[in-house]
Amino acid sequence: MAYPEIFGGVVPPLCTPFSADGDVDAASLQRLIEYQIAGGVTGIFALGSTSEAGAMNDAQRREVLDLTVRFVNGRVPVLAGAIAMSTGTVIDYAHMAEELGADAIVICAPYYIRPSQEEVLQHFRLAHAATTLPILAYHIPFNVQTVITSETILTLASEGIIAGVKDSSGDEVTFRANVAALAQYPHVAMFTGSELTVDYAMFAGADGVVPGLGNVDPAGYRRLYDAAIAGDWDAARAEQTRLTNLFAIIRQATPGRLGFTSGALGGFKTALRELGIIETNTMATPMMSMNDDESLRIRIILEEAGLL
Amino acid sequence: MAYPEIFGGVVPPLCTPFSADGDVDAASLQRLIEYQIAGGVTGIFALGSTSEAGAMNDAQRREVLDLTVRFVNGRVPVLAGAIAMSTGTVIDYAHMAEELGADAIVICAPYYIRPSQEEVLQHFRLAHAATTLPILAYHIPFNVQTVITSETILTLASEGIIAGVKDSSGDEVTFRANVAALAQYPHVAMFTGSELTVDYAMFAGADGVVPGLGNVDPAGYRRLYDAAIAGDWDAARAEQTRLTNLFAIIRQATPGRLGFTSGALGGFKTALRELGIIETNTMATPMMSMNDDESLRIRIILEEAGLL
Amino acid sequence: MAYPEIFGGVVPPLCTPFSADGDVDAASLQRLIEYQIAGGVTGIFALGSTSEAGAMNDAQRREVLDLTVRFVNGRVPVLAGAIAMSTGTVIDYAHMAEELGADAIVICAPYYIRPSQEEVLQHFRLAHAATTLPILAYHIPFNVQTVITSETILTLASEGIIAGVKDSSGDEVTFRANVAALAQYPHVAMFTGSELTVDYAMFAGADGVVPGLGNVDPAGYRRLYDAAIAGDWDAARAEQTRLTNLFAIIRQATPGRLGFTSGALGGFKTALRELGIIETNTMATPMMSMNDDESLRIRIILEEAGLL
Amino acid sequence: MAYPEIFGGVVPPLCTPFSADGDVDAASLQRLIEYQIAGGVTGIFALGSTSEAGAMNDAQRREVLDLTVRFVNGRVPVLAGAIAMSTGTVIDYAHMAEELGADAIVICAPYYIRPSQEEVLQHFRLAHAATTLPILAYHIPFNVQTVITSETILTLASEGIIAGVKDSSGDEVTFRANVAALAQYPHVAMFTGSELTVDYAMFAGADGVVPGLGNVDPAGYRRLYDAAIAGDWDAARAEQTRLTNLFAIIRQATPGRLGFTSGALGGFKTALRELGIIETNTMATPMMSMNDDESLRIRIILEEAGLL
Repeated sequence: MAYPEIFGGVVPPLCTPFSADGDVDAASLQRLIEYQIAGGVTGIFALGSTSEAGAMNDAQRREVLDLTVRFVNGRVPVLAGAIAMSTGTVIDYAHMAEELGADAIVICAPYYIRPSQEEVLQHFRLAHAATTLPILAYHIPFNVQTVITSETILTLASEGIIAGVKDSSGDEVTFRANVAALAQYPHVAMFTGSELTVDYAMFAGADGVVPGLGNVDPAGYRRLYDAAIAGDWDAARAEQTRLTNLFAIIRQATPGRLGFTSGALGGFKTALRELGIIETNTMATPMMSMNDDESLRIRIILEEAGLL
Repeated sequence: MAYPEIFGGVVPPLCTPFSADGDVDAASLQRLIEYQIAGGVTGIFALGSTSEAGAMNDAQRREVLDLTVRFVNGRVPVLAGAIAMSTGTVIDYAHMAEELGADAIVICAPYYIRPSQEEVLQHFRLAHAATTLPILAYHIPFNVQTVITSETILTLASEGIIAGVKDSSGDEVTFRANVAALAQYPHVAMFTGSELTVDYAMFAGADGVVPGLGNVDPAGYRRLYDAAIAGDWDAARAEQTRLTNLFAIIRQATPGRLGFTSGALGGFKTALRELGIIETNTMATPMMSMNDDESLRIRIILEEAGLL
Repeated sequence: MAYPEIFGGVVPPLCTPFSADGDVDAASLQRLIEYQIAGGVTGIFALGSTSEAGAMNDAQRREVLDLTVRFVNGRVPVLAGAIAMSTGTVIDYAHMAEELGADAIVICAPYYIRPSQEEVLQHFRLAHAATTLPILAYHIPFNVQTVITSETILTLASEGIIAGVKDSSGDEVTFRANVAALAQYPHVAMFTGSELTVDYAMFAGADGVVPGLGNVDPAGYRRLYDAAIAGDWDAARAEQTRLTNLFAIIRQATPGRLGFTSGALGGFKTALRELGIIETNTMATPMMSMNDDESLRIRIILEEAGLL
Repeated sequence: MAYPEIFGGVVPPLCTPFSADGDVDAASLQRLIEYQIAGGVTGIFALGSTSEAGAMNDAQRREVLDLTVRFVNGRVPVLAGAIAMSTGTVIDYAHMAEELGADAIVICAPYYIRPSQEEVLQHFRLAHAATTLPILAYHIPFNVQTVITSETILTLASEGIIAGVKDSSGDEVTFRANVAALAQYPHVAMFTGSELTVDYAMFAGADGVVPGLGNVDPAGYRRLYDAAIAGDWDAARAEQTRLTNLFAIIRQATPGRLGFTSGALGGFKTALRELGIIETNTMATPMMSMNDDESLRIRIILEEAGLL
């Protein structure tokens, strides 16, 4: 099952399996990668937000990326996230990604420092000057507070700084406008990170999808992607509806106990454990892991979806 | 000039001087520290937000903290910031601070991952278990998006996890409520990070102030603090008014060019350069440094304030 | 050209033409209504946000609704907005709408008072008990600050309180979820108020659209609607793209001079004046009207769109 | 007990007592006014946010203002709120206030329409041109979404449009800056609407306070005000602390049931009922009234405060 192009298609942001005591669980990670490739993904995005990279230290990030590149073993491209607030650390992560053999690096806006757009541009330009890897801009204002404006994205594309955009903003109107504006730069791939509107995004001309929920059902997203490419919108919508129902697994955390991130990612990991793909649903500290009650609710959703 | 107590008084969050090519400028840092101590500060807070720690890599942080501890040389306590989004990295920074001889560690809520309060608690408990240093909670929602609720602060105090709070929220009502609620834990020091309401905070019973503007005028904040301790509220208010006028240096960035952080911190550094204390106003990348027009406006404010 | 059903299709929220001295301009209003009906609209929404009802007093609202009902003269249904913060005033407006012969009333969440969802429910229940007109819920959090949750909408539908929803939230994911959830209540019509994603909304199963931009190009929205109903998604998308380009008329206000509302609605009215349909682009006070520079920019967009 | 000046001192925003069936309860209103005057208030603010004006219709507003002016009978000035989103309706309310004998009118920024500052200025200028009453600017962004910037306030003062500002923003830093900037316009009175920082505000030079909690304990706020005027800051702080503890009555609503406004105002009204001053704690629709559980919690707070 060949993937359509380097930076397009279905590229799930891989979860990171941990053992009960918090170590990276290599055997589970390998099973998860095989599950993704068997499901027809066209790329793997390691160390994205879904990986809990924001809660890992450097040693863990290195281990995860190294294992991922080796397990994937060239079958699909591996994109490496460089989630860091400073330009210097992003460059350090880019060099690590080069060294470990990743195919591209995914960089979000600087955070904590609340930058201007001029400083966002500067961030990407400096990173580009320091790495040989193609760069995707990671637009995720919920986590980093800063919007990467359409004007900034267009500038980065026109300067040849970015090879793509991974948009997790949830702003469908701006995403669509960006897809239209970037049509003049065909080498810049537009990915949506919104699991629930992949049919919309493909209809608007997106190149691909980076669905957290793809961890749980990669084949579903591949079917949705293929239907959209074929222009079979009824089939795309039907698959989208099925996946939207499955997405309920991210809303099963007991209110107040888990946070936004652990509630969502914990849902993915609990589902993967229930499916027998990973060993535990342990989260990186300080995130709390889902308990038995929460896990039971997720099990029921998986059963209703016919995945169990 | 003795300082009143370990965790109280005037504790400026130190700026980090860089050379024009971005290296840590040790000579300028030493002059800045001498200027602070001569101004009567009762502690030094290294690697806080004002230090641009959010835009430094690990090697730079180590260098800055090492130099700071050595230059201060025991004359006042050195608090070390551990600005990091994950518990693991915070603990790494705490160990670095122990090794380099800092007297306390200042820890903000986890960020990027958008935690629940339960997870904020977990973050501080795990850090406390991993370090021998006293911990101050760093409440700075503008940068980390997450509020540390009064309930969380009270829980941390009651468990003996924290030795203080550095509150940069700008929420005077909640700060005041926290001061009142923590009166039962006299060993927990309450610092305000709001430069413009130090008289209010002291009037409400705060133990001290961590003023970014203190870099520029440490003696002014010490006079304000002393007046408040003496109950001379007219003098405190007059000094506050003078410092509030000086604070205009943080609003001189050309709109759109600099960001929130570089606009404010760039104002401090430009003023320090104009005062002859540090060599350049260079910022850590990707932050932009102030240009000549912006610098001129700051020079005028310093002149009006009688500092030049 | 018959309209598909009472509460579906293309229902523009009518602009209110004023004379230069601020009186309701009946002749312009009549021309505007004829332009809409000639363009194939299936209903007229009077006194919506686009009408500037929020800046009219009661006498003006009565005059506008009275004229609208008489000019439409039964050719399509007339929906009347009841934009008011209190239940009592909403009921007063509902009675006015009954008296003047409107076919339905459109009610937003209470505002200024920042209600709970329980109070939002109470608001709609009391309005329903006081009027014989069918009620559409007007979901417009940007203006009223309060979200009408999916749970509230579902409750209102299940109790038979509402006959439809006009959703101007811009939240495509929730709109889509509401369309799916309300499929069990076929008599409840789902309208999107988002001009730029009508193809998405129709693809997701919406019943119709209430496009402010429809004032300027009603035939375009009718073609888009018809293409979607026919399942001709390529044609729908092409029409959407054309209308999206035309939507640039709402971004021509000089930054800072006009507000969000006057900048957008002023764009519609200036375009209508340039098209010769209404006499002036005067806005209700305190909103500023577009000046010559802004008008020229709009004229250019209309020319590029082939409307001039 | 004379009041210090026309627009200064303690001016509670009066609650509106309703009978169980929602009519204005004149006897309770009269008792409430007597309670305020006996407590030493220097003015009465009718039809403010605390009055539930946002949930009244025009007939109710007229009745409340008419009764208030007659019951006060010239003993202190009566300020009349003109809470409305449009300039036209504000002017209608100003004329009503003139007719009924109020001494000033209090006007917030236009809302629903999301105006620019230029439009906010226009709003106040047009209102000023249409009324003989002095105008206070009502800064309450939580309810109207729009900030009245310091620059706008200064412009209004310099043009002689406003006689005062009632600031309920909760932004202590900007309030203080405004007090300083308006010192050059001594006829413009600065009121804080923040019950918990009256000592701060007076310390910064405010002219008075408009405390919702003053309905419940007017004498407390008068003592606080008098202590501040006398420069007895220890006494002012002690009184503030006592009132801050009493303020807990606004946090007793069961989460989710009541909204922001009904939760706070319901607390005031329930306390007034428990104190025997008003007959019921009924709220204007659609706001929910406090139930027995909530009332009991308020009763306990009143007992702890020594008011019962």
